Amino acid sequence: MKEALRYRLLAAQLEMARQAARSVVVVITGQAATGKTALINELNHRLENRLTEVHALAPSSEERARPYWWRYWRRLPARGRVGVFVHGWYGDALFGRADQRLGAGAFRDRLEQIRAFEAELAAEGVALVKLWLDIDRHVQARHLKALLQDPERAWQVKDSDWQRHLQHHTLAGLGKQLREATEAGHAPWHRLQGGPEHKPVTTLIHRLVEAMAGPLPRVERVNGPGAPPSGEAVPRLAQLSGGARPKLAKAAYRRALAEAQARLAGNARAIHRRGIPVVLVFEGHDAAGKGGSIHRLTSALDARGYRVHRIAAPSDEERAHPWAWRFWRRLPLDGRFAIFDRSWYGRVLVERVEGLATPAQWQRAFDEIRRFEGQLLAHGAVVGKLFLAIDKDEQLRRFHARAETPHKRHKLTEEDWRNRARWDDYCRAIDEMFVHTHDVDGGWALIDANDKRRARLAVLDHVNALLERRLAAPE
Amino acid sequence: MKEALRYRLLAAQLEMARQAARSVVVVITGQAATGKTALINELNHRLENRLTEVHALAPSSEERARPYWWRYWRRLPARGRVGVFVHGWYGDALFGRADQRLGAGAFRDRLEQIRAFEAELAAEGVALVKLWLDIDRHVQARHLKALLQDPERAWQVKDSDWQRHLQHHTLAGLGKQLREATEAGHAPWHRLQGGPEHKPVTTLIHRLVEAMAGPLPRVERVNGPGAPPSGEAVPRLAQLSGGARPKLAKAAYRRALAEAQARLAGNARAIHRRGIPVVLVFEGHDAAGKGGSIHRLTSALDARGYRVHRIAAPSDEERAHPWAWRFWRRLPLDGRFAIFDRSWYGRVLVERVEGLATPAQWQRAFDEIRRFEGQLLAHGAVVGKLFLAIDKDEQLRRFHARAETPHKRHKLTEEDWRNRARWDDYCRAIDEMFVHTHDVDGGWALIDANDKRRARLAVLDHVNALLERRLAAPE
Repeated sequence: MKEALRYRLLAAQLEMARQAARSVVVVITGQAATGKTALINELNHRLENRLTEVHALAPSSEERARPYWWRYWRRLPARGRVGVFVHGWYGDALFGRADQRLGAGAFRDRLEQIRAFEAELAAEGVALVKLWLDIDRHVQARHLKALLQDPERAWQVKDSDWQRHLQHHTLAGLGKQLREATEAGHAPWHRLQGGPEHKPVTTLIHRLVEAMAGPLPRVERVNGPGAPPSGEAVPRLAQLSGGARPKLAKAAYRRALAEAQARLAGNARAIHRRGIPVVLVFEGHDAAGKGGSIHRLTSALDARGYRVHRIAAPSDEERAHPWAWRFWRRLPLDGRFAIFDRSWYGRVLVERVEGLATPAQWQRAFDEIRRFEGQLLAHGAVVGKLFLAIDKDEQLRRFHARAETPHKRHKLTEEDWRNRARWDDYCRAIDEMFVHTHDVDGGWALIDANDKRRARLAVLDHVNALLERRLAAPE
Repeated sequence: MKEALRYRLLAAQLEMARQAARSVVVVITGQAATGKTALINELNHRLENRLTEVHALAPSSEERARPYWWRYWRRLPARGRVGVFVHGWYGDALFGRADQRLGAGAFRDRLEQIRAFEAELAAEGVALVKLWLDIDRHVQARHLKALLQDPERAWQVKDSDWQRHLQHHTLAGLGKQLREATEAGHAPWHRLQGGPEHKPVTTLIHRLVEAMAGPLPRVERVNGPGAPPSGEAVPRLAQLSGGARPKLAKAAYRRALAEAQARLAGNARAIHRRGIPVVLVFEGHDAAGKGGSIHRLTSALDARGYRVHRIAAPSDEERAHPWAWRFWRRLPLDGRFAIFDRSWYGRVLVERVEGLATPAQWQRAFDEIRRFEGQLLAHGAVVGKLFLAIDKDEQLRRFHARAETPHKRHKLTEEDWRNRARWDDYCRAIDEMFVHTHDVDGGWALIDANDKRRARLAVLDHVNALLERRLAAPE
């Protein structure tokens, strides 16, 4: 019987690895002295080790210097694999609240984030198994004492176990709140008795087999962080059809550029000193001059302090993870700039228009993106989003110019012409993106890029203004 | 003229990216106040940012908790990209010696490691450009003082600059030694004047264009860390043809297994407490029982403390880096186990036999592997290498058994039969691998796996012995 279950587990895991269509995430949390370690070891011995990763978190300096959720995103298993998290994203919430490092409101916020995080994972084909281990307070004390008296096992008892024992009642209450707030069909809690007299491993394995081989549950929609505040003027591409101003003269441009770059250099040094991370997103029509604008920007930055990420097709490792993983992995350390030449907005632009994402996928991406950027802001990052727009005639002129200039020819591809054929679809997607992701703190700057010089200055001005606003805020 | 050079640089970089056959690594080091930062910025502004990464190192906790060279390996650019390293692997050697953190011998050792590291990179298609910036001591002092008097630039002068100024003579001498020890056709030094009156960027760009577009220089052979010590008995597969002992009875096996696992559990806890990393390599004939042996081993380990890495085909990100990169990225944190089910030895086994590596590649791999393992040992890691051998008849029996057992059928693939057809080639490669990589501190354990039970016990005994030897050594 037990052997049969074990083979079912292994068979399910191997089949899951073969299909590589889903991954499984197990989170085990609960009271102290419930035998979590033993349980995880037992489980792990029954799994195919080579397809399993167990994570007990102790945040490293690299993790502390990045937005909070980075530490979890980087550990997500690839499709076909199993990740087992000891306490996972619950430990920090639960013990943080019990130890009063988190206020009641911050605890609720965190649970809301967890709920959204798990919904996002589930929607990307991650099957979640969450286990809460309970133990009676008296049994817990008896068990801890018994362990201490056994020379072979006394090392298992840590001071923190006694602290958690004293918090038993608090943890029980927080656990209830936590489970209620994060219960979902796609991320169900299983509450089991732990401690010396219980063997929850069999139940856990049953749940795991279901997660590996059962139908993936329908993902329950989590309400987004809310629509952008009303009253804020959302950019629209049509705004720009104002007609042709005379182009900025070269001499005036050079003077203004040097001035803006000097200002940026000073701001960037202050940002670095203050340890503020900066995330800049450049989107725009093909040939709108994103690369050139980024170049004018980085020319004012210390080369050691920024990285430009050009977002094209994902690698196979990226494809094997939830879609946002490849952006999380590129987030900057505190005090550094990450500049995205195209970005996560590809989900609601090229992937939407070209049918690379399903309607369900790109529609929920608006919420996912708002949450993602919200997490950057919550970490104290400056988030700047710039859209460089040109009109259709100007694009044609630039395509022709590229085709005729030897050192620019490489910039013009088949894809550019294909995209151009769908100009109106793109414009619709762009305007809709503005509506859904324009926010007070992470709003879009729509930049008229028909005049390259003015556009470059506008980019620098916008970034300078963002940095200065942030630097003016108290530390 | 200047514009022409700039286009040549960009064109070379874009072509290099298109071909994705080589990467370029630039290291810039030398005296203080030579304008390194300005130079790197100037260079960076002329490069395609989206294909360039600039690295100034300040080791993180994750880096300190891994073998020394991990911090550089993880930052190597993928093929098609440029990595610019401020001081790179030279800074630590140079300033470490100047500040007396490194003794004269340790400094020479480090230069030897650098020499080998660069040769390994070059052989994998990394074009190296190394720049040493000089400055006259009086000019340096004048320049530092001038900077201090300019309110706009005074921030550029750090205390360490004055320290380096006082060390000018020392650094000049060390620099000479360092350049001589690491000069190579495939990794040439370019010594240039820095400081306020010199503009080395043009020269640097010329060297860079050569590195991107010129022929890749022939790699000069670096002498390996030496053949394994004589007198040490190198394993040979033929040793095992001793004939059939009676198989170990189940009851005796169970007792011995439980005992060995208990011993291992205790050893592993001590290893964890001491923060010693453990790297175990499992190689062996197909169907020799690597997976089963690993499982008996991990059953005694805390699930949070180890990771099993099954080495199969590399991902596309891995293929874009020097071949050893995918093993470096899997090295454990201090106090953890990394268990490799197949390993870097694939280079001299399957890649050799199947012609996936050229003879030049697998032949130099012996040295590369010895150095790699040497770096693990130097970091204080326990390195255990186990080869599980069976004879040809036993393999056939196991293949048939697998084909007939439903839950084992997945383990038998076409590839297994193909490999079997080349049994003798593999045996030759295995014996040669033993000769080249059997070393006192990282020697092979050749395990007769014809009797699975005895093999599993032998694996546990060997690992226990390794851990106990390490634990017996003073902290």
